[in-house]
Amino acid sequence: MSAEIPTQFTGHAAMEPQDEHKFDLKEHAYTPRKFDDDDIIIKIECCGICGTDIHVITCGWEKHDRFPAIVGHEIVGRVVKAGPRSGHKVGDRVGYGAECGSCRECSNCTQGLENYCLKGNRGTYQGKTNDAVQPFTQGGYADYYQASGHFAVPIPDELESATAAPMLCAGVTVYSPLKRWGAGPGKKVGVVGIGGLGHLGVQFSAALGADTYAISHSDSKKDDVAKLGAVGFIASADQDAALAQHRNTFDILLVTTYQEDLPLVEFYLPLLRIGGNIVIVGLPNSGLPKVPARPLFGKSLSGSLIGSPAEMRDMLKLAVDKGVTTWVETRPMKDANQALDDFAAGKARYRYVLVNED
Amino acid sequence: MSAEIPTQFTGHAAMEPQDEHKFDLKEHAYTPRKFDDDDIIIKIECCGICGTDIHVITCGWEKHDRFPAIVGHEIVGRVVKAGPRSGHKVGDRVGYGAECGSCRECSNCTQGLENYCLKGNRGTYQGKTNDAVQPFTQGGYADYYQASGHFAVPIPDELESATAAPMLCAGVTVYSPLKRWGAGPGKKVGVVGIGGLGHLGVQFSAALGADTYAISHSDSKKDDVAKLGAVGFIASADQDAALAQHRNTFDILLVTTYQEDLPLVEFYLPLLRIGGNIVIVGLPNSGLPKVPARPLFGKSLSGSLIGSPAEMRDMLKLAVDKGVTTWVETRPMKDANQALDDFAAGKARYRYVLVNED
Repeated sequence: MSAEIPTQFTGHAAMEPQDEHKFDLKEHAYTPRKFDDDDIIIKIECCGICGTDIHVITCGWEKHDRFPAIVGHEIVGRVVKAGPRSGHKVGDRVGYGAECGSCRECSNCTQGLENYCLKGNRGTYQGKTNDAVQPFTQGGYADYYQASGHFAVPIPDELESATAAPMLCAGVTVYSPLKRWGAGPGKKVGVVGIGGLGHLGVQFSAALGADTYAISHSDSKKDDVAKLGAVGFIASADQDAALAQHRNTFDILLVTTYQEDLPLVEFYLPLLRIGGNIVIVGLPNSGLPKVPARPLFGKSLSGSLIGSPAEMRDMLKLAVDKGVTTWVETRPMKDANQALDDFAAGKARYRYVLVNED
Repeated sequence: MSAEIPTQFTGHAAMEPQDEHKFDLKEHAYTPRKFDDDDIIIKIECCGICGTDIHVITCGWEKHDRFPAIVGHEIVGRVVKAGPRSGHKVGDRVGYGAECGSCRECSNCTQGLENYCLKGNRGTYQGKTNDAVQPFTQGGYADYYQASGHFAVPIPDELESATAAPMLCAGVTVYSPLKRWGAGPGKKVGVVGIGGLGHLGVQFSAALGADTYAISHSDSKKDDVAKLGAVGFIASADQDAALAQHRNTFDILLVTTYQEDLPLVEFYLPLLRIGGNIVIVGLPNSGLPKVPARPLFGKSLSGSLIGSPAEMRDMLKLAVDKGVTTWVETRPMKDANQALDDFAAGKARYRYVLVNED
């Protein structure tokens, strides 16, 4: 089977920084780095579009020169080549999230917290390698992907590839902190922002047994959130009304929106009960707004970064057990530019997945 | 017995904002507010000196006009008058911490979280009352104290009054967050700042079963902290050495120092393990320093405010069971000015308690 694998992989690459109103990815072939004993190569079935993809190829977070850039880190495919120490075999269906490597030796890695590797984890794309041919990793808007098998998780038979793919980044980004900070029966959880992350956050929180509320700016997603398993909807546009009803009641607020001016002091902290915790998974580079002492008394502020391979496995099992599903619209991989234009325009309800058609 | 109670209580009052290098409290008599059915009057045996006392009478936190001001909120005394709904009887030895009243009706008060009363708790001194004669409360540098019995806790026979008094503010300020955020067996706790709060923080953390480290600027308190029950000492003056040994290992850091420029990003957050929590009990009014996104990934920042009457009772029981004791130096109440001068100069090891001599 490995005879069929091309010597070069071909993807849809940003050849230079992109205009977020008109993406212009071009077909680009690259030579994968030397195959290691713990590597696998997968033939990509599909890859979700994540907000990070946009930030990276528009240089929205930071100016960089890692072009041509093939992004995509919500990848599902079939193993076509498996190293003897990869933990996988040819024919397995597996997926990668946003991490494809770590030191495997630090105290976090050895505890199964590879996403918090103390030496810095390797991104599924744009991750620095020690390889002269491929100095940084290329991602999943492509035909093939090669990386360490340790970071590939098996996709349960019950989940379609396009459903599973966005869980591997967006899903575990919300699942990990919900689990870490105790979402479960008897807990009241608010998910702020109903998009790619938030629509999975509502579902995973409900699947974990928590009373889950969706908190969204306007009413436009109110019908959707009931279908996602929320027991209530809170319009954040009217903070006074929301506080009148919910002040001092939430155990966890999971903030999935990406914004510089989070209303922590006037809105989120007052919604928390004593002992409650706000987890911000869309924390901007500029960090937390400055918080005065009093609103924080008895309460916590937290951050979180994706999730570990072990958490991804647990999450996929929970998704199967409780029927969590990504709301996806599939697009042909060859139409990546149009899909990115639509994603950047906020049209996704709630995730686009690019599908290879052969 | 109530016949002996004077109609006016007499204390050592700041008649105007004080110079922290030379305190000048003067004897001052005031008429207590009308006695309610749930009130008690105690004849004060002793009262600890807390840093808050200094801030208030020097107007160090905020300029205010609530003078003459009798401070002191680590009070132990005997009940000399007990209202029928006070829950106490004449002759009981009881104590007050920093809170003497709350609404008793909000969702925090009814859960036993009176220190987080949603309508604002009433301070043991400087607390607003509805009484024309005594518009704000006067504290424990005095002969008598009157307040709601609900906020007075019984002092166990095993504890001396001067030992118990500082626990009622300093003690519960550290006990409450240690308990809330899970200090116990298998947990590694660091107590930052070894003073009035910190020396009790080390002891209560150890009493709860945690592996407890003292983190102090210089080595001068190294011998003391071993006696307090710390398993290790970390000199924060050498952050690199501390991080080399302890990076990514603490479950809880309890920060008892009061400073504007907390080294959260470069020191405290890197000391935390994933899932760990920094509790800042000396949070300045200016609040948290601005924290960028990355150092907070997987970690929490919290605040805390004193503790509830229920927590005070639990804490005193733990102190008896595990031999926690305040390191106090007693001073005659009449020498309050000298004691305040010494306290402000940082001479306390680790708490001064003013004692009425009759």
